[in-house]
Amino acid sequence: MNRHAKGYKEIENQLGGALLSRLVKKFGGTSVADIDSIINIADRVANTVSEGHKLVVVVSAMGSMTDELIRLVRNVGKCSDAREYDAAISAGEQISSAILSAALRNRGVPARSFLGLQVPIKTDGQHGNARIIRIGTKQLHDCMERGEVPVVAGFQGVSPDGSITTLGRGGSDVTAVALAAALNVDRCDIHTDVSGVYTADPHVVPQARQLETISFDEMMELASSGARVLHIRSVELAKNFKIKVRVASSFNNNPGTLIVSENEVVEKQTVSAISSSHDEAKITLFGLVDGASAAARVFEPLAEANINVDMIVQNLSVEGNEASVTFTVPRGDLNYALETLENLKTQVGYESVAHDAGIAKVSAIGVGMRSHAGVAQQMFSALASKGIAIEAISTSEIKISVLIPEAYTELAVRTLHEAYELHNRK
Amino acid sequence: MNRHAKGYKEIENQLGGALLSRLVKKFGGTSVADIDSIINIADRVANTVSEGHKLVVVVSAMGSMTDELIRLVRNVGKCSDAREYDAAISAGEQISSAILSAALRNRGVPARSFLGLQVPIKTDGQHGNARIIRIGTKQLHDCMERGEVPVVAGFQGVSPDGSITTLGRGGSDVTAVALAAALNVDRCDIHTDVSGVYTADPHVVPQARQLETISFDEMMELASSGARVLHIRSVELAKNFKIKVRVASSFNNNPGTLIVSENEVVEKQTVSAISSSHDEAKITLFGLVDGASAAARVFEPLAEANINVDMIVQNLSVEGNEASVTFTVPRGDLNYALETLENLKTQVGYESVAHDAGIAKVSAIGVGMRSHAGVAQQMFSALASKGIAIEAISTSEIKISVLIPEAYTELAVRTLHEAYELHNRK
Repeated sequence: MNRHAKGYKEIENQLGGALLSRLVKKFGGTSVADIDSIINIADRVANTVSEGHKLVVVVSAMGSMTDELIRLVRNVGKCSDAREYDAAISAGEQISSAILSAALRNRGVPARSFLGLQVPIKTDGQHGNARIIRIGTKQLHDCMERGEVPVVAGFQGVSPDGSITTLGRGGSDVTAVALAAALNVDRCDIHTDVSGVYTADPHVVPQARQLETISFDEMMELASSGARVLHIRSVELAKNFKIKVRVASSFNNNPGTLIVSENEVVEKQTVSAISSSHDEAKITLFGLVDGASAAARVFEPLAEANINVDMIVQNLSVEGNEASVTFTVPRGDLNYALETLENLKTQVGYESVAHDAGIAKVSAIGVGMRSHAGVAQQMFSALASKGIAIEAISTSEIKISVLIPEAYTELAVRTLHEAYELHNRK
Repeated sequence: MNRHAKGYKEIENQLGGALLSRLVKKFGGTSVADIDSIINIADRVANTVSEGHKLVVVVSAMGSMTDELIRLVRNVGKCSDAREYDAAISAGEQISSAILSAALRNRGVPARSFLGLQVPIKTDGQHGNARIIRIGTKQLHDCMERGEVPVVAGFQGVSPDGSITTLGRGGSDVTAVALAAALNVDRCDIHTDVSGVYTADPHVVPQARQLETISFDEMMELASSGARVLHIRSVELAKNFKIKVRVASSFNNNPGTLIVSENEVVEKQTVSAISSSHDEAKITLFGLVDGASAAARVFEPLAEANINVDMIVQNLSVEGNEASVTFTVPRGDLNYALETLENLKTQVGYESVAHDAGIAKVSAIGVGMRSHAGVAQQMFSALASKGIAIEAISTSEIKISVLIPEAYTELAVRTLHEAYELHNRK
């Protein structure tokens, strides 16, 4: 802990002096579950303000509020309306921002809640999954000038025609990072239930260590390969606008993990973290005719059905034109993918299909891979030494993912954590 | 019933031809209690639209939503903040307007929800009890031009600085009437749990009859003397802007009661309705010195404490300067009023105080009183004939109220209903 704090201070100093003067702080997860939690946040915010920092706070909806609102609006009928869905479910963040703001005022901290509509956070108007296109900062600047803390309802914005739009999954994090960019603050703190980014899930690997820093690219790969700390959209946004993001606990003052540009990562590791995901399912098509154009015939209809295909292994049969192809789809889309393929069986041209939802994707992530050879080989050897079969492989510049039988997930994560000596990671 | 409908049609014809083309319809009470109720409203609105009417719909919050939100925000701490209180509790109407709008679209009726902020409904900014100062009608006109039904969240507006403000008790009715005025529609329908305005509470007087019409002034007196059909603010607004308001059931198509200008009331009755209220408490101060200035000394501190004093009976003692004064205050303010008087005992100058919350106010209301003598005498005789003691009397041009022991309330209402022959009221 002491060591952490020291390391963190060093990083801050490297990043240049008076870093902590202007911050966006976002609170989500169980830290806004109920009134007592919100009062706890109010205490934390009040402390930060009393230390002289200028703050903008972003909050998620309380506890199960959003789920309840979704249930309500879905019960209306079969075809729910996207605009009204947004108008209804955005009320959750409206309520928590008002309550946090009231709790702050109750503590003598001047505060003021803002809807996305009031800021305004202007979006492209795509209901349910809107993208932020511009943020008006005058209201927030004026509010801060008056010495008040703006408390912004996360997850929401306003469309060009003045309708409420929600930002989709991870939307409150996106709100926080986008505000940090628009206000040009020094850092965006995402306070959540976990105390930072770890070398692996500590529930699986007791020796897992919390990272002091991680690069944007690594964080993006982590987010897209099973780590649920931050949604990939907010990391991408932070990278594009060079916003330093800190992931830290809502419940203590530990420094957490700082997400920064690659050149600011103090000690580059070959592999920084191991992640695992159970969100995929595997489909294999056997007896594909005309192997060369098979890929197009298989994946075009899936793309048209909006199903994301991830890992692909294609094996041309040595004996002729016939081949088999294996690929993964999001587990929730498995049945829909199978239906789509069944409906187009003759068009796609395959003999039979097999599927398996009992698989997991395990990934090793690290910017050091760019300059280090043998990282993949090390992974395959380590997994082989434990008798873990690799069913598919996919790689990016800074990530290697393997598909394995689900039952081996934890063993694989621990094995790789040890193989790359991540317990020694500082 | 048939006769009712006919009478109503006649009134409509009197009021001029194509009355029903543009309407504001407000739904509240149990008619927005839950999803099923809202779907029921959507059916009703869809029917009205299919008949060719142009509609603007106003909705209250669902069931206990507002109470729950009030509880939430009150739990934040002792001094709750008025601005944030409004931001939180206005979410209730936001949710129901979005859900009703979605339910309409689900039925193939184009609809669009509006917050007060989006209309905009501009208010004076007094949080918790704001007054509407201006309504922008362009958004709503555009919406209707496109053939959509605007569904406006009731009870809310926006302050000059862009904050959400709520309109206080009866706020959704105020929203409806104000929109009717701003849009210059033909009528404002307030749909609620009761099917109209009655000559007396039908639970108390089985022979009570539903009124086809009632004048604005009578309705205001009714609202301020215990009838909970409409809040006095919305009636006042309707009177000022000459908006015909119809009070009718949310659950059937009975014509309800039309509130109109006095000269449009078809058959003026001496007394139109009997109402009763249990919201008062009685205070008597004995041994007031210097009777002449007593009133000022008693009622000034109460006015400063924001306590509304209603009926006052002052009796100068024949023997000297000492007097007693009896008056009523809202029952909820009784303890506060007693405290205020106790604290200022020497200043006010009285010997002792007595109080009684076991009282009721019974009122007879009718525009015909203006031209008919003996209405009050008839009331006093009828009550005396049943041995009901009158503890105080107050009158206006079109109302007589008496204070009686609470236990006699229903008897008094039935006695007066019979005395004025209201069961024969057409």
